[in-house]
Amino acid sequence: MKIAVVGCGALGSYYGAKLWRDGQEVHFLLRSDYEIVRRRGVEIRSPEGNFNARPRCARTPDEIGQVDLVIIGLKTTANVQFPILLPPLVGPQTAILTLQNGLGNEEQLAKLFPIDQILGGLCFVCLNRIQPGVIEHIGQGRISMGEFQRWPEPRTHDIASMIRHAGIPCEVTDNLARAHWEKLVWNIPFNGLGVASSAGLENFLRSSDVVVEKLAPCLTTDKLLGDPRWEMLVRELMLEVIAAARAKGMNIAESFVDTLIERTKPMGAYKASTLIDFERGQTLELDGLFLEPLRQAEQAGATTPRLRTLCAVLKAVSKIRASAHGS
Amino acid sequence: MKIAVVGCGALGSYYGAKLWRDGQEVHFLLRSDYEIVRRRGVEIRSPEGNFNARPRCARTPDEIGQVDLVIIGLKTTANVQFPILLPPLVGPQTAILTLQNGLGNEEQLAKLFPIDQILGGLCFVCLNRIQPGVIEHIGQGRISMGEFQRWPEPRTHDIASMIRHAGIPCEVTDNLARAHWEKLVWNIPFNGLGVASSAGLENFLRSSDVVVEKLAPCLTTDKLLGDPRWEMLVRELMLEVIAAARAKGMNIAESFVDTLIERTKPMGAYKASTLIDFERGQTLELDGLFLEPLRQAEQAGATTPRLRTLCAVLKAVSKIRASAHGS
Repeated sequence: MKIAVVGCGALGSYYGAKLWRDGQEVHFLLRSDYEIVRRRGVEIRSPEGNFNARPRCARTPDEIGQVDLVIIGLKTTANVQFPILLPPLVGPQTAILTLQNGLGNEEQLAKLFPIDQILGGLCFVCLNRIQPGVIEHIGQGRISMGEFQRWPEPRTHDIASMIRHAGIPCEVTDNLARAHWEKLVWNIPFNGLGVASSAGLENFLRSSDVVVEKLAPCLTTDKLLGDPRWEMLVRELMLEVIAAARAKGMNIAESFVDTLIERTKPMGAYKASTLIDFERGQTLELDGLFLEPLRQAEQAGATTPRLRTLCAVLKAVSKIRASAHGS
Repeated sequence: MKIAVVGCGALGSYYGAKLWRDGQEVHFLLRSDYEIVRRRGVEIRSPEGNFNARPRCARTPDEIGQVDLVIIGLKTTANVQFPILLPPLVGPQTAILTLQNGLGNEEQLAKLFPIDQILGGLCFVCLNRIQPGVIEHIGQGRISMGEFQRWPEPRTHDIASMIRHAGIPCEVTDNLARAHWEKLVWNIPFNGLGVASSAGLENFLRSSDVVVEKLAPCLTTDKLLGDPRWEMLVRELMLEVIAAARAKGMNIAESFVDTLIERTKPMGAYKASTLIDFERGQTLELDGLFLEPLRQAEQAGATTPRLRTLCAVLKAVSKIRASAHGS
């Protein structure tokens, strides 16, 4: 299968490298890392075994041309580039699979392409781009994949089967929207409070406006679960996200909260991706992970005061950090 | 959706009644129970609530004509009737879903119809037909459904969604063959030893030919797990079935044995369906549940001595019982 990987950070590089190793024709669309990846390939360091991948490298989508499958691993903050990066890759038979975080990515693709070409994948993987062309795979890797607003098709299963063949656990979901919300039940508290915790607990205790003055270190998952006050906020946020999903007609059980808390405990001092971005001074992916879920929750009539406060704190924290980094 | 239920025993009646209650156009094809079901409908007694269903009743498939979906709930011993019962119901767009036990049913349908019309469903349900037109639902009810030798299609999900809408948990599997073998891991020991236990433990202890003289009562699941010697046989059979599935390329983990044993313990004195048939003097469904799996295991080169003995004992027991019932 001819595959283009658009957005070759940790996520795109990791999955692209595994598909390349399995014999697929994989093209990386690169910008800053173009020279180094073209010369040295991508190095994957993984407890499952290190390897070096040598995908074809391109600087522009026109060099690649139409492919069978586009895999999108861009930060969602770069989605404005869709109209420039994607059209040269997409023919009438091309499947477009976004592996990006949060809500709204498939919708943005649907403004450019027919919906029956759009798929979404939820990635459960822990990766770190430690330097250009070098990706550390810390653990996991599963993808849960589905068609945008439609049932899976035989084509969906063909792609999932190809991904599994490359050693990546991959399942097909018949309800991509629900899978997104299930992932948000974890992502919103642990990514969100992880960063918001740097502004202190106070903003969640008072009902007045959010005030952020100076920033403390972020809290990893073990710290959030190690303090009963933060754990309570984690649980409340989870319940709010479940309530929002239910208001939208997706029946997620409240017991899912306990399941997720128990699954998170063995992860130790885990840094959710938003924390890593934040510590590196990168622009946070606030929209898909927090603001759009809040919009949809309110639109559906769900009561989500904790999520509203979280969004306000994240915006304030993000602003302070942006000015500190002069960006 | 216009649905024909062929084989209105406990299984077909239960699912057909639930679909009827949900507003589908359901036709029962009946023989011995025709008069009573036409007059009084089907009574479902269930811990989830009793109800009476009034599906349309027919004596011949021609009265029903072509339908959107055929649901087959026949005992597999009646599969020879497929060529008489099914063709009048099946047009070029009809989906044919067999909910029957064991291996080989889809293959028999494929001799009559194009394979892209054939689906299989594994039922995890505990039912009892206590008298004509009266079905006792003891518990569970989930269906795991897939296309025969093909990926699921949007059509598959449409049918699953309709089934779920009727209050029946239903999921789509992308590997029907594997789902069959996973179910056999439980069915072969508990259905098989349940009945074979009536011939005593000795046949499994000696290496000579099977000898069955008189029959003791069958053992329910709790009895099989309550005696370390029977439990050992249960586990050995499970491992053999897993080995056979693996030889056929389906990777079922050996730890599945422990999972199933733990799941079975809370079921108490559960009578697997083959036991119920046996105690009623009905012909046993040996082929799909035992003989065909053994054939496929041996063909794939798996070593399955316990399964071979089990099949021999079941044939001997079945023969004695048949002569006792004069059939």
